[in-house]
Formats: sequence, structure tokens, C-alpha cells
Amino acid sequence: MQLRDIGEFGLIRKLFNIFSSTGEDQANLFPFDDCAVLDIGDYYLLITTDLINQQTHIPDGATGYQVGWFLTAINLSDLASKGATPLGFLNSMALPPELDVEFVESIADGMAACGRAYSCPIIGGDTKSSSDLTISGVAFGTVLKQRFMPRMGSRSGDIIAVTGDLGRVGYAFHKIDQLAPSKDNNYYKELFLRLVLEVKPRLLAGQMLAKLGCVHSSIDLSDGIGSALHQLQELNQVGYNIRLDTLPAVPMLQEIMSSISESELEDILLYTGGDYELLVTLEPSKFKTAHTALQLLGVPLTAIGKVTSEPQLVLHGPLGKRPLQNKGFDHFNP
Amino acid sequence: MQLRDIGEFGLIRKLFNIFSSTGEDQANLFPFDDCAVLDIGDYYLLITTDLINQQTHIPDGATGYQVGWFLTAINLSDLASKGATPLGFLNSMALPPELDVEFVESIADGMAACGRAYSCPIIGGDTKSSSDLTISGVAFGTVLKQRFMPRMGSRSGDIIAVTGDLGRVGYAFHKIDQLAPSKDNNYYKELFLRLVLEVKPRLLAGQMLAKLGCVHSSIDLSDGIGSALHQLQELNQVGYNIRLDTLPAVPMLQEIMSSISESELEDILLYTGGDYELLVTLEPSKFKTAHTALQLLGVPLTAIGKVTSEPQLVLHGPLGKRPLQNKGFDHFNP
Repeated sequence: MQLRDIGEFGLIRKLFNIFSSTGEDQANLFPFDDCAVLDIGDYYLLITTDLINQQTHIPDGATGYQVGWFLTAINLSDLASKGATPLGFLNSMALPPELDVEFVESIADGMAACGRAYSCPIIGGDTKSSSDLTISGVAFGTVLKQRFMPRMGSRSGDIIAVTGDLGRVGYAFHKIDQLAPSKDNNYYKELFLRLVLEVKPRLLAGQMLAKLGCVHSSIDLSDGIGSALHQLQELNQVGYNIRLDTLPAVPMLQEIMSSISESELEDILLYTGGDYELLVTLEPSKFKTAHTALQLLGVPLTAIGKVTSEPQLVLHGPLGKRPLQNKGFDHFNP
Repeated sequence: MQLRDIGEFGLIRKLFNIFSSTGEDQANLFPFDDCAVLDIGDYYLLITTDLINQQTHIPDGATGYQVGWFLTAINLSDLASKGATPLGFLNSMALPPELDVEFVESIADGMAACGRAYSCPIIGGDTKSSSDLTISGVAFGTVLKQRFMPRMGSRSGDIIAVTGDLGRVGYAFHKIDQLAPSKDNNYYKELFLRLVLEVKPRLLAGQMLAKLGCVHSSIDLSDGIGSALHQLQELNQVGYNIRLDTLPAVPMLQEIMSSISESELEDILLYTGGDYELLVTLEPSKFKTAHTALQLLGVPLTAIGKVTSEPQLVLHGPLGKRPLQNKGFDHFNP
């Protein structure tokens, strides 16, 4: 049996069963969450690791700077979704010996720029040679125990909300797929790389939500809303109802809205990863406070649905109710 | 300019300069050490990351179990050299989709076995697809501040000592190079894999030395003695004198001693990485106590030389004094 037969989540479950023999359940207080979570007194210590590979994550034409920024940002996004403050970032890089030194320096520049932008020192790592460029990042940080926002904790009646807007990466893929390769498309190619790689982790928004104490469960949208809500449902004995017309579509989607089908739009808004916004469920009475507080940070917070007692995932669209699909990106079965 | 032109240490210096703009110097208290070191009150939090790649680190015929054990062990070795106690280990794996699930489970089994052997829970990670197998590990742990054993701190007059014995990996490479490929060599091939991959990190020995408070500087022998002492000298304004006849050669070297030259023996004992013993410099008056304490753990501690005020690296051999070379393994220029 090959990895592609069981998929990413099948593998993760197998690994979890194997690792549980090492005392993972005592050490890691919130398994299956965005970060590993350890008790260090008044605070939790959070650690997360995420890697990117030339073949699967680095689009042609990407600058080293964009690659370094992206890796740092997606690791910080995991801390953001838990309300944590970063302490540091480490990287380990497998690099082809014939790679230009300048390209690697540019990767480091991108990491450093992202680190400076989010007050996260880059404190070292490891370099090795390989045939293929693979870079792994580790971000760690802390959060006061009572402020931690876990994946597990959704309550029936909660409002489901997302930060920022959705469809940035879906738009980028749609545009790039439509364009025949030609000289004129350089503008869109560069835009594509910017939209996909220049991720802005929602650290301040996450910290603010954590401080307000209004969030019952939280996850980042690395794999899209469909995948995120299915992951939440595996941990919570509740259902999630989403209204399609409330999803905060990124303004640039207007440009293609008339030329795409309803189902293409759903794919962009619900089933495309890479937007790295936060999805939270929160106490209905506190939504307004949270909304206002994030507004001061310049970050929209939009209610997109409700947590229900019936354990189903439902999408309310123009044609009525349908199940929300568990589609997203499976690394071993794309 | 390519990576192979500047080598691993050239790259590390460039990266350090770039990352220092992110506040690395304030966050990481001991740059250029085996781990990143953060102040968390009474303790230091230590984090290290190390990756292995199919092409460069995984010999043909290695089992998944050996690969998983090896990656975990070499990360724990970095904690061992600082006197730390592990808190947890994370991994991120870039895996070809056509890889057998069983092989990946076997990697996880190896990680879990090493985790159990050294009381280090494996608490998660990340999986992605790629053309080439690359696995990155992250180990973290804590040590009481006053027990931390840094790389920087060697004092003139210190005894230089190593744990365990040397030449295990050098012996393995020598034997495997000598053997023509044939059926009969399966015994040596399996022995080779065991010697190279089944690393035993010196965690208990490191913790005991740290507790005794006798160590002024410490490093693990991932790249061999020559490389380790050159790395120490870059951080310390002292010299290191080594006596060849005091090096604790692993008993199996007897088998090949009569068939190898003096310089081949030096290569095995001084310039081959992978033994993962600890090299420490310590207060001469406390060597005996340290030696006795480690004996109780079944770990030899051997004095192999002296720290001197003259900043030179000297090897005392049967033919007199020579400079100790800065030879080891450079990943970009092997």
C-alpha cells in the first residue's frame, strides 16, 4: 500500500497511534491541534513545524525572498490561530550544492523580513545538501493558559467567524489557469506569486481574540474552510452550518465573478487552501466586541454561520441546503 | 557563486548575519551553539533542528526504523551536549506519494522507540509530498541555568575529555569500502547500517556532567574531533592540544589496525563524523569525580588533551607535534 492510497489524514492517524506509545498524550495537552502544546507553568509553550518542497510548494519563478517569507509566515499562522506570541523561529534546509548562494541568501532575507514584521527572531537552524530543495521551519511561542484557543471547544450556538477575506489564492489559481503562456502574462504571474506566497499571518488578530476570551475553538485556514470544519468536527461533537452568501469574498473576485460558475465560486471560497485566515467559533453575545476590537487592528471579522447541536456540516447556498464537502488539498493524493 | 564554493560553514556565517537583523542576539543567548537557547526563568529552553535526506544521509538498505531512530537520536544528541532534559520531539517529513506506507510506519516506529528509550515524547509534526525523502526533526528541552554547558567557556588548563569510544563510524566506512559487493557481505552491510544509524545520544552522561558543574565547554561529535575543536576555537580565545595515543579507540578497530596506515587511523579517530559522543573541557581537579560518576552510568570518560593559552590546535602523535586539521564533513563540498 502506498501513501497515496491512504492520503495525508490517513497517515497522520497512523503516526498518532504509533507516537502515542511515547507518552505524547501526557506531554502534548492538545493532540490534533495546530501546534503541540506543553504546560510550562502559567503559560503554554506552543511548537509547530511545517515544511515546503520545491516540487510541491514552490511555484516556478518564485523568488528566494518569497519562499523564505512563506515558510516563516505559514508556521507563524499556526501560532496565530492559538492566540500565541512568537518566541522564535528555526529553519532546516536541504539544498542542492549547485544552488546559487544569492538565492539562499534571498530565502534568508525573506525569513528575516517576516521575522521582523512579526517580532519573531530567527534563531538558527541546520543546512544539508540534497537533490531537491526542501526547507522545514519551526515556530514556537507562548500563551497564557487561560487565553489559549484550542481546536476542541466548539459549543452549540456559537457564531462561526473568519478574519479578513477569502478567495485570494483561489483567484490566483483561477487566473493563472486561464492564461495561455505568453509574454503578456508576466503581470499575472507576478501577481500569482505575490498572492500565494506573501502570506500575512494573523498574529495580532489571534492575540486580540485570545485576550478578549470570547473564542471557544480556533483553527487556521491553511487547507480551506471545508477541510477546516471537517477537522473541527472530528474533535467536537457538534455541527457547523455555513451560509454561502455571508462569506467575505476578496474584492478582486468581482473581476471574474461573471465568468465563473456557482460551483467554481464555491471551490474558490470553500475548498481552496492557502488563505491562512483564522476561523473561530465564539460566544454570540461577544461577537460585536470581538468585531470592534479587530476593526481597530484593521482586520474584518465576519460571521459566516452557526455551530449546531446536530453533528452535520451544512452549506446554505442559493439552491438550498447541501452537505459541506471535505475537500481540500491532500498532499499524497492531489 | 554556488553553495559548494562557500561550503556549509561559509553559508552558516552568511545566514547568521542576515538573521541577526531579527533580534537573534537578544533572543538566542548562545549563538553558534548546538541548540538555540532561550531564557524562561529558572531554566533555559533549548531547541534544535536537524534534517536528513535520502540522498545524503540514508544509506542503501537502511530500514525505516533505523532512519527514524537516527533522526531522533541526532537531535537528542544536541540536547545531551548541553546537559538538557528532553521535553519533546517533532518531525516534518517530505515523502514521495509512491512510498510504502509500511516504510513510513517503520520510520515512525524508530522515532517512537528512540523517544521511549530516552523519555522524550514524540508530539507531532507535518507531512508533505516530494520527489525525495527528506525528514526534519526538532528536539526541545530544558536545563537549569546554572547547569547549562555552552560551547563558549573553555579555560586554559582545562582537561579535554570525551565520553564513550571513537571510531565506530570510521570503522564501518572502512570495512564497507574494502568489501567488493557480493552476497557474502550482507553481514557487514547490516553491521554498517547498525553502526552508522543506531546512534545512542549521551543524554544521561550529559545531564550527569551538567549536575556536577565541572564542565566549562561542551559540544557533540557529530562531525568528528577535528571539526569540533575548530568550532570551539572560533568561540574561545584558547588552544586545544590533543594526544593521539590517549584517544579511546573502539575495540573493533583492533581488527583492522594492522592493515591500515597511521593516517587512515587518524582519519577514523579524528576526522570522521557520526560518533555522537560528547567532547567537554573541564576543571582538572574535578576530572576524577566526573570520571567516577559516569562510570556508574557505564559510560567511559577519557582525558585526551589540554586547553592551552596559546590559540593553536595541536595534535601530539608518534612523529611529534602537528596542527590538528579542520577536516570533517562539509555537506556542500563533500
